Amino acid sequence: MNFVIDGLQYANWSEKIFREMRAGGVDAVHVTIAYHENFREMVARIEEWNRLFERFPELIMQGRTAEDVTLAQDSGRTAIFFGFQNPSPIEDDIGLVEIVHTLGVRFMQLTYNNQSLLATGCYETEDPGVTRMGKEVIREMNRVGLVVDMSHSSERSTLEAAELSARPIVVTHANPASWHPALRNKSDDVLHALADCNGMLGFSMYPHHLHAGSACTLQSFCEMIARTADVMGVEHIALGSDLCQDQPDSVVEWMRVGRWTKQIDYGEGSADNAGFPQMPEWFAGNADFPNIAAGLRQVGFAEADVHAVMGNNWHRFFAENFAAA
Amino acid sequence: MNFVIDGLQYANWSEKIFREMRAGGVDAVHVTIAYHENFREMVARIEEWNRLFERFPELIMQGRTAEDVTLAQDSGRTAIFFGFQNPSPIEDDIGLVEIVHTLGVRFMQLTYNNQSLLATGCYETEDPGVTRMGKEVIREMNRVGLVVDMSHSSERSTLEAAELSARPIVVTHANPASWHPALRNKSDDVLHALADCNGMLGFSMYPHHLHAGSACTLQSFCEMIARTADVMGVEHIALGSDLCQDQPDSVVEWMRVGRWTKQIDYGEGSADNAGFPQMPEWFAGNADFPNIAAGLRQVGFAEADVHAVMGNNWHRFFAENFAAA
Repeated sequence: MNFVIDGLQYANWSEKIFREMRAGGVDAVHVTIAYHENFREMVARIEEWNRLFERFPELIMQGRTAEDVTLAQDSGRTAIFFGFQNPSPIEDDIGLVEIVHTLGVRFMQLTYNNQSLLATGCYETEDPGVTRMGKEVIREMNRVGLVVDMSHSSERSTLEAAELSARPIVVTHANPASWHPALRNKSDDVLHALADCNGMLGFSMYPHHLHAGSACTLQSFCEMIARTADVMGVEHIALGSDLCQDQPDSVVEWMRVGRWTKQIDYGEGSADNAGFPQMPEWFAGNADFPNIAAGLRQVGFAEADVHAVMGNNWHRFFAENFAAA
Repeated sequence: MNFVIDGLQYANWSEKIFREMRAGGVDAVHVTIAYHENFREMVARIEEWNRLFERFPELIMQGRTAEDVTLAQDSGRTAIFFGFQNPSPIEDDIGLVEIVHTLGVRFMQLTYNNQSLLATGCYETEDPGVTRMGKEVIREMNRVGLVVDMSHSSERSTLEAAELSARPIVVTHANPASWHPALRNKSDDVLHALADCNGMLGFSMYPHHLHAGSACTLQSFCEMIARTADVMGVEHIALGSDLCQDQPDSVVEWMRVGRWTKQIDYGEGSADNAGFPQMPEWFAGNADFPNIAAGLRQVGFAEADVHAVMGNNWHRFFAENFAAA
């Protein structure tokens, strides 16, 4: 059985997008349900998803385990797995780690762009590493089966998290900095640390993470994947598109600014490029996943490795990391 | 397989009490986790239970399904099922019904003693019946598998809930008013309504619900059960001890007063009997469940009916009512 699994999306969810998931043969998507939300606000996001599951039972279902991805494929649906891009929903309360896992959350970033209670984000100038609470929370995440995601974290915090965590950690959505030196992309040290802990890197198609941005070619993207396979091993790489389809620009402002500043922060953008950037022409949305598979074949990936990158690696990772230790 | 299941307790949980559950052969208990708590406060109560599950894995486990009761029995543990005595944890938000079910909640009273957003409590002077929101919430509870419990509700609200609910409703802890005319005990009309909807009555051993209070004899209690079996059918009756073991009197004050008044309300007690009443000598705690079984045999119950009342009826009810419709 082969799977297509996307390691991160935050679209403006609609029937249209769910139908595109089906058109693209997408079996599972890890979706973001919190950027800056506190616990109660995050629960309201789950309630919105529950209404979508109720309205579109023939298109989507909630995913909690790797078996759910198989079930989704067998029934022609896409399994939706919840995750946080910030630990804000657990507030200052370690007991909420198990609660959010019970609610189906399977990935949690220890930071978004800023310092959190747990670790340091990639936009801070100083990186003191994983905090006291961060160490406790990593242990609790390991216990219940909530995966540590360091996509938006800074270098030292990421390397420490890989070391501290008894289970594999991931970067669900970023690319190697050697290909495109964005603050959000990852050093070779981080790539090695991910591989060494049996973790995963999901390749991002968000233009700010791409060499040449929106003009990045599919060939350049797939050649970068091939080089990263050489660095990390093909079993540790996958997709994490960071697709934010159909979102108004107010949403990227919420992602960047939350409630932490009264100023505008442009994050990866700039004053004259403040909104969501245009996606590359070979990946406009979920229906375009077959383009990626074709691109991987084009640059020489063997068939088994194409499937590994497209979803089989995530499926194996889900099977090993979503249950209690 | 025979089961011992208690339909309601709110003890001051401790290793001592869990060991008494094992001594009494108790396979499952429905425990109250909220009286007046809002959603976030109720989540903190679940966090406390999670710590107990982690500390005493050889004595207790969380129960979510009837199969969990079997698993608990097979592994020499007691399965703990969560419930609310008030709808306060769902606040004014129908989406929280599914959320709390996901967290393992299996029973919710539509009211405690007062008017709620959903229905009327048994201490109000007027009973306008199930509210607009109450009708919506009953339908949602039916959909997800959260059982409507009317233990503390008033007559009209209870009869309407039985009528409105597409699935059986219960009174987890009360006795027939014909035996002891307390405001919390139930009319024959309510008993018939429970039986007609294939619901359940759990017999309370809380002294304010007993004929002669703390001095009630085991024989009187068991004869009352025999008469109720004639009224409702033996398949609709079970136990719901309302055991509040080892609680300080401050807890009964919280139950009665919550945050809704600045006065003292004595509930079923009185100024000169304000605290928790003394339990009858034949039921001091979980180790005494065999006394009840012996009392039922003494008043003539056949062996299969003893087991039906002691737990097999609850087990069947759990199997039929805790999953999505």
